[in-house]
Amino acid sequence: MDNLKGLNFDPHVSVDCVVLGYDGQQLKVLLATKSDEAPELEYNNVKLPGRLLRVNEDLDEAANNIVSQLAGARHPYMHQFRAFGSPNRTANPKDVLWLENATKQKIGRIVTIAYLSLIRITNRTKSAFNDSPVEWFPVSEIPQLAFDHNEIIDAALREVQRLSQMRPQLVFEMLPPRFTALQMRHLFEQIQRRELDARNFAKLVLSKPWIVPLDEWETGVSHRSARYYKFQANKVKK
Amino acid sequence: MDNLKGLNFDPHVSVDCVVLGYDGQQLKVLLATKSDEAPELEYNNVKLPGRLLRVNEDLDEAANNIVSQLAGARHPYMHQFRAFGSPNRTANPKDVLWLENATKQKIGRIVTIAYLSLIRITNRTKSAFNDSPVEWFPVSEIPQLAFDHNEIIDAALREVQRLSQMRPQLVFEMLPPRFTALQMRHLFEQIQRRELDARNFAKLVLSKPWIVPLDEWETGVSHRSARYYKFQANKVKK
Repeated sequence: MDNLKGLNFDPHVSVDCVVLGYDGQQLKVLLATKSDEAPELEYNNVKLPGRLLRVNEDLDEAANNIVSQLAGARHPYMHQFRAFGSPNRTANPKDVLWLENATKQKIGRIVTIAYLSLIRITNRTKSAFNDSPVEWFPVSEIPQLAFDHNEIIDAALREVQRLSQMRPQLVFEMLPPRFTALQMRHLFEQIQRRELDARNFAKLVLSKPWIVPLDEWETGVSHRSARYYKFQANKVKK
Repeated sequence: MDNLKGLNFDPHVSVDCVVLGYDGQQLKVLLATKSDEAPELEYNNVKLPGRLLRVNEDLDEAANNIVSQLAGARHPYMHQFRAFGSPNRTANPKDVLWLENATKQKIGRIVTIAYLSLIRITNRTKSAFNDSPVEWFPVSEIPQLAFDHNEIIDAALREVQRLSQMRPQLVFEMLPPRFTALQMRHLFEQIQRRELDARNFAKLVLSKPWIVPLDEWETGVSHRSARYYKFQANKVKK
């Protein structure tokens, strides 16, 4: 290899999490909406939940800590999907100012390891969020974010789109404990960004042994009440 | 998020490349076999080709530079597959000593972004290697490597195994310009680590529009001479 002498350069390393959830109607992403440090400064104040890596933390551990803490989910489904390290990530001085205020250190370049987490939006997670500066945003209404976080979310959405075809069972991590065929389809439609034929979709999905029909039907609806299903993770072949 | 004050910690960031090739018989991985810095020191002297990230480099750019330089391949197929960042990566003092000598800086923790590259082993790449401290090792005979590089290679091999089923065309990046059905099958068998039924495999693969039979046959062989095929990348649907 070539000579590395004099190459004294260490970027910061962070972990950022794209946490996706579904409230029964909309596919949503969890975003940190403010920093409680130096609120008098103006900066891009919406970003992905994440932080710098800590001294004794492994990457997976950091991501798990971040998502568990924010979403109140004990063992959230997550995996690392890509590292982002372009020198342009910190091109916007507002972003840098924010982070320098929050961390009390000089920020140059940051390489971030991005994780994707698919979780269920429950009452428990909602109440946990109320004490934290994070909010669910519909993926169709994501504002301009700090750093390259819009780009990271786009990459995460492409990853989920791919996963929804390769390992559709992962998508069911986001559905409520019981759900209708319509809810399933709407979630897949939002992930795949296309309309799906209702009959074909139902046929395909309901053929899976891990989708179990319940003897429960919607109540209090004006249309014909729909049957509920549940997802049985232990019936998914490894 | 929690308070990040006083958290003054920056790991080093490196890029390491798992370059896989096929010489017509064996699946091989490219390893750096020595450092020309401080040869009098004893250390684990086989590792993945890689180096610390440079000041103005993007991650993909660094990986591309490393592989192009070592393998003489201009546009090698490659993609980032995972970041490895466990604090245990630098648990072995020999590994740290090597890197400290090579880089002339204190090494604490290193987060590495790992890339997978699939290339053809050609005469050109062989001659490029002769001037560089890298060598092809059969994946079945990989020695104890520095850092967690054995683990990184294992993860890369699992990734290729997955890819060989999802996007088999990528595997053909490794085959010579013309190849026999037997060579194809042996490569897939080494990647998937199982025997494949010769007839079924031939049927499946030869049904692909991007595998084109040539009017050329093996010469100088004692067994019945086999037909050659070529891979036509532009016939692969995007």
